[in-house]
Amino acid sequence: MSRVSYVNGTYRSHAQAVVHIEDRGFQFADGVYEVWGVFDGRLADFDGHMTRLHRSLNELQIAIPMTSAALKRVLDETIRRNRVRNGIVYLQVTRGTAPRDHAFPKDVAPSVVVTAKTIDPAKGEALATKGAAGVTQPDIRWGRCDIKTVGLLANVLAKQAARERGAYECLLVDEMGLVTEGSSTNAWIVDADGKLRTRDTQANILRGVTRTKLLQIIAEEGLELDERPFSVDEAKQARELFVTAASTFVMPLVSLDGTKIGDGKPGPVATRLRAAYLEQADRDAI
Amino acid sequence: MSRVSYVNGTYRSHAQAVVHIEDRGFQFADGVYEVWGVFDGRLADFDGHMTRLHRSLNELQIAIPMTSAALKRVLDETIRRNRVRNGIVYLQVTRGTAPRDHAFPKDVAPSVVVTAKTIDPAKGEALATKGAAGVTQPDIRWGRCDIKTVGLLANVLAKQAARERGAYECLLVDEMGLVTEGSSTNAWIVDADGKLRTRDTQANILRGVTRTKLLQIIAEEGLELDERPFSVDEAKQARELFVTAASTFVMPLVSLDGTKIGDGKPGPVATRLRAAYLEQADRDAI
Repeated sequence: MSRVSYVNGTYRSHAQAVVHIEDRGFQFADGVYEVWGVFDGRLADFDGHMTRLHRSLNELQIAIPMTSAALKRVLDETIRRNRVRNGIVYLQVTRGTAPRDHAFPKDVAPSVVVTAKTIDPAKGEALATKGAAGVTQPDIRWGRCDIKTVGLLANVLAKQAARERGAYECLLVDEMGLVTEGSSTNAWIVDADGKLRTRDTQANILRGVTRTKLLQIIAEEGLELDERPFSVDEAKQARELFVTAASTFVMPLVSLDGTKIGDGKPGPVATRLRAAYLEQADRDAI
Repeated sequence: MSRVSYVNGTYRSHAQAVVHIEDRGFQFADGVYEVWGVFDGRLADFDGHMTRLHRSLNELQIAIPMTSAALKRVLDETIRRNRVRNGIVYLQVTRGTAPRDHAFPKDVAPSVVVTAKTIDPAKGEALATKGAAGVTQPDIRWGRCDIKTVGLLANVLAKQAARERGAYECLLVDEMGLVTEGSSTNAWIVDADGKLRTRDTQANILRGVTRTKLLQIIAEEGLELDERPFSVDEAKQARELFVTAASTFVMPLVSLDGTKIGDGKPGPVATRLRAAYLEQADRDAI
């Protein structure tokens, strides 16, 4: 847990870290967020997340609250004050605080909140070695999942459904029976022909920063990839199934709705991509 | 603006009314709300809103934070401390504060926030007498709009689009070209044949408390009503178009996307229903 958190210009003990009840993040989900992996105290893919943050803010016409260099200093300081070597740093930017009215308020400064916490890498490694369980559920989210907003209730309900079924992640399925993405991850398969596949971002999904990084690694490794959707049945018949996110890296799913994927163990492609991702993320972290 | 607000058991000066940055309302839109009209210091349709609140909480498996009688005392006290004779009282209940994780936290108390503010009835009356402008936009909201959640960003964007086009409300339109509801209202027409029509709640819309009250009034007044959808074209060709909400009552829209509705003035049915609604709401307020 974060012990010291940054809120609108001030570092506070986490217990005292508060926002106003009329912050539009609280009343309207009118805000966006980013999560960076922290490797040995440094930020993984700082630029990738900053680019997406700026895109999210721009799509919602929320002002950029500070320069990238200033924000980097806040992220670094929050990491330092929480003594995080390995873990995550969380940034939330909302439209700000104003008397409740749906339409945008005028001349309001965005709210900025940053937390950081340690995550024991051994836990994720253990799960990745064993493989995790996945379930599926209809994708009922709104039409702008390309924006990384805090309007996450559909994702919350999907993740909760996974937990109640003893699973790690819930893959969301569109009306055509095709997987869009996970509740907090992008989803990938190695199909029955041995080819990697993940959904294209023309679909209503998040442009995962870890997804983008993995696409580069896949190209560098000379692996074949199709950026197109796969069905739940194709996932069940796939050689491998895995999900990606900034805090999860590459996580093999070894079952889906109770059906064993491949031989029920993490496959060679996911295992190799996880190792390559971790190596690059650590090497390039700043 | 609220001067004194209720936050988790305490009345605070509004400027000091805060929630934790890890309140799930702030990080996940994991909460619901209600807005009551206040008539002469009393709550309009207390029971109707309480019934819907309990349904929303139940659908999300958020615990009911206090008895209806206790909540009534909090709403009354917030109204009293803000000296509201006519206006609204706003209640927000979230799943509570917990370290950030999508899945539901265990053993967490819900957060409860109440604000109240005065609204000059003359302003709404003036607009209702003149009639308001409406615009339309695709409905991109999630699949559970029957739950009154704070996941309102799609509604915010629609309302903002209305304001930027000089309009009062934005009607949301589904893929079939049929109006679902307004960004913060339910939508109604008096069709070309003189029959009232509003969308049925089998559709992905909110079960408006004011909508329900108006259905009763319509039945009492012996007016004919079809609970079925209308298209944007039907709205433009309608004799009357109006929207309803707890703070808006019955508001005639006299144009839609620039097309004049009827003779461009508030029609007799909307005007009569507004008067009947106001009379009943005031009479039955407790």
